[in-house]
Amino acid sequence: MADDEVRVAPVRSSLDIATILGLLGAFSLISIAIYLGGSFAAFIDIPAFLIVFGGTLAATTICFSLSEVRGTAAIVGKTFFYSIREPAHAAVHVLQLAQMARRHGILSLQDVLDTLRFEPFLQKGVAMVVDGVPSEETEAILRRDVLAMMQRHARSASVLRRASELAPAMGLIGTLIGLVQMLSNLDDPSTIGPSMAIALLTTFYGAILANIVLVPLASKLERNSSLEELVNSIYVLGVASIGRQENPRRLEMLINSIMPPSSRIRFFD
Amino acid sequence: MADDEVRVAPVRSSLDIATILGLLGAFSLISIAIYLGGSFAAFIDIPAFLIVFGGTLAATTICFSLSEVRGTAAIVGKTFFYSIREPAHAAVHVLQLAQMARRHGILSLQDVLDTLRFEPFLQKGVAMVVDGVPSEETEAILRRDVLAMMQRHARSASVLRRASELAPAMGLIGTLIGLVQMLSNLDDPSTIGPSMAIALLTTFYGAILANIVLVPLASKLERNSSLEELVNSIYVLGVASIGRQENPRRLEMLINSIMPPSSRIRFFD
Amino acid sequence: MADDEVRVAPVRSSLDIATILGLLGAFSLISIAIYLGGSFAAFIDIPAFLIVFGGTLAATTICFSLSEVRGTAAIVGKTFFYSIREPAHAAVHVLQLAQMARRHGILSLQDVLDTLRFEPFLQKGVAMVVDGVPSEETEAILRRDVLAMMQRHARSASVLRRASELAPAMGLIGTLIGLVQMLSNLDDPSTIGPSMAIALLTTFYGAILANIVLVPLASKLERNSSLEELVNSIYVLGVASIGRQENPRRLEMLINSIMPPSSRIRFFD
Amino acid sequence: MADDEVRVAPVRSSLDIATILGLLGAFSLISIAIYLGGSFAAFIDIPAFLIVFGGTLAATTICFSLSEVRGTAAIVGKTFFYSIREPAHAAVHVLQLAQMARRHGILSLQDVLDTLRFEPFLQKGVAMVVDGVPSEETEAILRRDVLAMMQRHARSASVLRRASELAPAMGLIGTLIGLVQMLSNLDDPSTIGPSMAIALLTTFYGAILANIVLVPLASKLERNSSLEELVNSIYVLGVASIGRQENPRRLEMLINSIMPPSSRIRFFD
Amino acid sequence: MADDEVRVAPVRSSLDIATILGLLGAFSLISIAIYLGGSFAAFIDIPAFLIVFGGTLAATTICFSLSEVRGTAAIVGKTFFYSIREPAHAAVHVLQLAQMARRHGILSLQDVLDTLRFEPFLQKGVAMVVDGVPSEETEAILRRDVLAMMQRHARSASVLRRASELAPAMGLIGTLIGLVQMLSNLDDPSTIGPSMAIALLTTFYGAILANIVLVPLASKLERNSSLEELVNSIYVLGVASIGRQENPRRLEMLINSIMPPSSRIRFFD
Repeated sequence: MADDEVRVAPVRSSLDIATILGLLGAFSLISIAIYLGGSFAAFIDIPAFLIVFGGTLAATTICFSLSEVRGTAAIVGKTFFYSIREPAHAAVHVLQLAQMARRHGILSLQDVLDTLRFEPFLQKGVAMVVDGVPSEETEAILRRDVLAMMQRHARSASVLRRASELAPAMGLIGTLIGLVQMLSNLDDPSTIGPSMAIALLTTFYGAILANIVLVPLASKLERNSSLEELVNSIYVLGVASIGRQENPRRLEMLINSIMPPSSRIRFFD
Repeated sequence: MADDEVRVAPVRSSLDIATILGLLGAFSLISIAIYLGGSFAAFIDIPAFLIVFGGTLAATTICFSLSEVRGTAAIVGKTFFYSIREPAHAAVHVLQLAQMARRHGILSLQDVLDTLRFEPFLQKGVAMVVDGVPSEETEAILRRDVLAMMQRHARSASVLRRASELAPAMGLIGTLIGLVQMLSNLDDPSTIGPSMAIALLTTFYGAILANIVLVPLASKLERNSSLEELVNSIYVLGVASIGRQENPRRLEMLINSIMPPSSRIRFFD
Repeated sequence: MADDEVRVAPVRSSLDIATILGLLGAFSLISIAIYLGGSFAAFIDIPAFLIVFGGTLAATTICFSLSEVRGTAAIVGKTFFYSIREPAHAAVHVLQLAQMARRHGILSLQDVLDTLRFEPFLQKGVAMVVDGVPSEETEAILRRDVLAMMQRHARSASVLRRASELAPAMGLIGTLIGLVQMLSNLDDPSTIGPSMAIALLTTFYGAILANIVLVPLASKLERNSSLEELVNSIYVLGVASIGRQENPRRLEMLINSIMPPSSRIRFFD
Repeated sequence: MADDEVRVAPVRSSLDIATILGLLGAFSLISIAIYLGGSFAAFIDIPAFLIVFGGTLAATTICFSLSEVRGTAAIVGKTFFYSIREPAHAAVHVLQLAQMARRHGILSLQDVLDTLRFEPFLQKGVAMVVDGVPSEETEAILRRDVLAMMQRHARSASVLRRASELAPAMGLIGTLIGLVQMLSNLDDPSTIGPSMAIALLTTFYGAILANIVLVPLASKLERNSSLEELVNSIYVLGVASIGRQENPRRLEMLINSIMPPSSRIRFFD
Repeated sequence: MADDEVRVAPVRSSLDIATILGLLGAFSLISIAIYLGGSFAAFIDIPAFLIVFGGTLAATTICFSLSEVRGTAAIVGKTFFYSIREPAHAAVHVLQLAQMARRHGILSLQDVLDTLRFEPFLQKGVAMVVDGVPSEETEAILRRDVLAMMQRHARSASVLRRASELAPAMGLIGTLIGLVQMLSNLDDPSTIGPSMAIALLTTFYGAILANIVLVPLASKLERNSSLEELVNSIYVLGVASIGRQENPRRLEMLINSIMPPSSRIRFFD
């Protein structure tokens, strides 16, 4: 794969198909089940919605700080709009850059900097190398960035986990409010059914919020975080190696030593 | 940020906005839901209140000692009335003090002692340095204070956790009492609804007490404790460094070594 | 506190106020709630009592041996009738004894042996020192006693924990028996309510047994065990130090090194 | 206890009283509760029995292999029919054998081999020593046997634990089948009660199977396994020491070093 | 067992009887219970099926990536169609191959390569040895394969575990949809029963999917994975030993050192 002309494939942004397909699928199935059994109107109740979503948000906020809750929203948003690169692709990409720097000099990387705009972490590292920042300093700064990112992700995942524990509890609280109201006022038997239906809606919302949104997103975030750490560690190794002007074959060895066994690569012969 | 004139910003007390907003938000949402569905009267029942709140307190007291339960109440009160400082702010503040001591002598800190009254831990340390207490002794005493505080917080968090496990159980016990009373006395069908409503109130109170008050406060307390440990460790480093009359640049390095990667500071260019 | 005349305060037995207040409080609240809603008679059912209390005891016995279950009862009894001494009090007490031995000779401790009758562990250690048992042997025997006590407590706590898991299950089994009996025999609708009330009683008993008695006692036992280990370790240090005729100031240093930071003492100057 | 004539008490087989008393007690209490409330007939339903017991067995079999499930049945059977010896008794017994071998020669143990038939592990070891198998080899073979036994017990305990998690789930599945059948066929109101009673029977069977049989037996098995490991380790030490013709006093020291503090023995003076 | 003529028993593919018997048994028991109580028709509902099975799949997909979910399906399929060999059989088999290579030369293994087609991992290793690949390289490649397989299995097991947590939640969500629909529309009392029956079906499906399919398969997968690691490690030891042309007696010793105590073998006298 490493022939004479050095090709550096540009990085493209992409959506995380699994997250989007999964959410669409789950909500479609629930919508179909509701549609087959009657009208949607019976499943929409603004106060029930407020008590579950707002209550979960409020109780989660008590557990953390405002900035942590806001940061979680931002990180969850990011989860939808791109999927982490495959470590093997990232490794090949970094080796292409290393080979290019080896053959045509580090300054030649200036030309491909723009193709890296969807991988800002790698772009930052390559830019530092091109600017002549010492290799040790580049590595230290990038490693600190990776650690800070991991820490942010871990904090956001724990916000989501806590919220997923509180959502069913808020659903239960809402249902208890509805039940108490219905039971205190049994004069007109014809209202019992609809009142109880509304009381159950908060439990329904809480179960959906916890099991289809919060728990899966927390899982995905934790999975992505460890994957992103691996990809960024590959970038750190690569940038540092380019900065030290090492042989790309040595870089391949270093990368393989941190790869999971199933993703190891063979770039050179 | 470290120009010629040394500015030492005074510390201000502040409320923990997240805790207060969260509690207000959650209780407002529940109140609105109750208000929309009828009157508040149906949701207030003194015996139900007593059995859940008193019962949780009593059963928690069995698990611990009276002084531990009292100490928890005091620490929870403190949680509302101030938020821990950002570690980065605390670090800059300590570096300002160190720079002032470096330029104008340790005794010059006497003048700013009063501005530290909202950070009694830092005030105590600076006062000891100004009084000429040897640096090693100051550090040892302050470190012991930090450890003792951590231990008190951990004990209080475990009191809250235990109470949050017992509150729903007390709610269930109250509901069972109400159900047995209602079922033993089915003569007048018109009382079934209201009796059952009252029986459910204890479960309602238990769910609110556990999920909106106790679990979030325990989480917040644990979060605050580790943050306060970090801030106080920064203060300990700073006070010891001032006492040893070291270069503030060395202090910045020491502080950054215990900072989480995302909060590291650059005070000197 | 260490003036010329050596005062050795006698140890008094005391009740564990938190355990007794907590149990009294919880059961009073439940009794009041029952009394306000009707008669006690509806809440007393001998077969329900037997199936929950006896069933929990029987199923717990399967998990352990007869002697372990008996030992747990004995240890739980002890929990009510005395509270562990504050470690700081125990430390001061031991230092008083050490100072007395230092000034008036080890044999002078013979006179205070009788005042130690409520701390049999300390009494045994002091008696061995007075009898001239070598210091190493005394220490080895006392340490083994501490370990054996810890082990007994840990076993009893695990018996209580297991019982607290089985009690709600026995409550559920009793309720299922009642429900099946009621449902098989629906001929007379007037008996449905009372039958179901009785069926729920086992769940009620199980919840009380687990949450007000077993879980709190297990917690208290674990808490007491680690406190008692600390107090007894202080006694071991003290007795060994007296036996070696060391300076009590060195003993204070040794004791502080095993004290939690919040309980450290300053006996000398 | 170690006088001139060497007495070697024969080992007797014995039943595990706690397991048998506990099971008898729990089932008696349940039977009495059923008897007091009506007839047994309402509590016996072959399909309900099959779905809970058979279903739990089937689902547990999927998790493991056929031989592991069979092995668990065998080990559970053994649990009823003997109780592990007290470690202190086993230690004294081994020291008696060691003293006999010391005084009258190893071959004299031939005479007591038959009295060890209820402790086949010890018998095997002593027989190897009498046959002149080298001490190191005897020890290696016995240690491997102990490890293999521990491993079998751990596997069986995990089979029982898994089954205890599946039993209530099978009970729920059975109850759901009954409820769906009853609800699909509400024509004759008089059958509602009995149908629902039968539906609840599977939950009843599942709760009994899990909480009175499987969980306690898994606990007992784990407890016995660690006790049996201790007793067998004492035997291994003893047999190896006899084989090496060491002084029994040294053997007592070795045994006490692996004893829990509360069981240490004093055989010599 | 190691006589003069070297017999190499061919490996046969086999079904995992425990998995198949268990699944057949559980589903037969459920079918019989349904059949005895009425018709199957009441238990089949396509929308309920879709919401539980599809919803669990969708929510699990959010937690992972599409390729991980697909990989899990493939690995679960493999679980049914073969059982892992007994480690002792694998060990004997490898020793037979080693002895054959020892007596008749490595190239003689060419003849038996075909009999290994049901153990592709062993076949690959032997083929490399026959082809003269250096022993160290063969070992490194095979070890990497084992690690990659373990990783794939662990990932699939965590997919199954997560799905088993989500399945009952999807069942609850479906039941809540059915209940809300039924309660909003209580005009015709004759439809209450059947509507509620259908609402309960999703809970029924969720309980079966989780407890009879997903949890047991995850357990079996984890159990098989550690067994397969052991068998493959035996193969790696064997292939490397054959490649180094070592004495098969040394190989037996190496294999026994990684065997669990209960499976150790004695191939040579």
